[in-house]
Amino acid sequence: MYHVIFHIDEEEKWPLLLGNVENLLAGMTAEVEVLANGAAVVGYKSEAFINQMNSLKSQGVQFVACRNALNARHLLKEDLFAFVSVVPAGVVELVEKQSSGYAYIKP
Amino acid sequence: MYHVIFHIDEEEKWPLLLGNVENLLAGMTAEVEVLANGAAVVGYKSEAFINQMNSLKSQGVQFVACRNALNARHLLKEDLFAFVSVVPAGVVELVEKQSSGYAYIKP
Amino acid sequence: MYHVIFHIDEEEKWPLLLGNVENLLAGMTAEVEVLANGAAVVGYKSEAFINQMNSLKSQGVQFVACRNALNARHLLKEDLFAFVSVVPAGVVELVEKQSSGYAYIKP
Repeated sequence: MYHVIFHIDEEEKWPLLLGNVENLLAGMTAEVEVLANGAAVVGYKSEAFINQMNSLKSQGVQFVACRNALNARHLLKEDLFAFVSVVPAGVVELVEKQSSGYAYIKP
Repeated sequence: MYHVIFHIDEEEKWPLLLGNVENLLAGMTAEVEVLANGAAVVGYKSEAFINQMNSLKSQGVQFVACRNALNARHLLKEDLFAFVSVVPAGVVELVEKQSSGYAYIKP
Repeated sequence: MYHVIFHIDEEEKWPLLLGNVENLLAGMTAEVEVLANGAAVVGYKSEAFINQMNSLKSQGVQFVACRNALNARHLLKEDLFAFVSVVPAGVVELVEKQSSGYAYIKP
């Protein structure tokens, strides 16, 4: 079983990233996590992406936000889509996941 | 023997990426693949890069394009330089290569 | 013990990268290297970042520059902050570190 963590920290990369995740799942069986930090966390409350994210969530994709990035933008977990989970530090998550065998992709 | 996969998805990053690959091969022996998806695939038909790519190809570098990205731009394999190979999904290639020990670099 | 190499090749990404490294060290114990190549090497002589870099250096972070990138910009090691070390090729460093178990993060 493959494991993959996608990293996004620029808001404008969301369409590219979500398409990348769709293409990945169409081509292989993998456990996929999307980790957003920096300016990208606002994508987790953008109606533009909710349908695509919901569909990916139903295929098992985990959507994760960095609490440091939320704090810097005065956002709470409650401001984000309900399916988003929050970790204390996005970069810590990126390191831990790679150390446990996840491939890293930065669109 | 080192193995490296370079990932490019922005057309304007080609000069930086090709210089990176040249510097890598000048400094170490490695099996190198360049994986282009997203908007970057059009670089594989740009005369601006053909000489540099040809020279790297002769040093063993594999140039690979994502078919999803080509389809989205109505491009065929035949539209690209002859030395470019095509994979069904670039992100799948990135995961498989990292899982078999390739280092990942995103210029 | 975790090992992490941060890669930066765009000058404007320094504030994001330095914040990422601070968040990482606040959240986990790790050996951290920052590898700058391309246009990012000029950050190593920018007064805007010296305090933040000095503080990270005192926490054990290694700041490293690519000599190819310095040469292309007619910069010498002496032009950079004293705590910066120089490697012959930044991309070689990225591969060697990943091959010895470092996680890779590209902000």
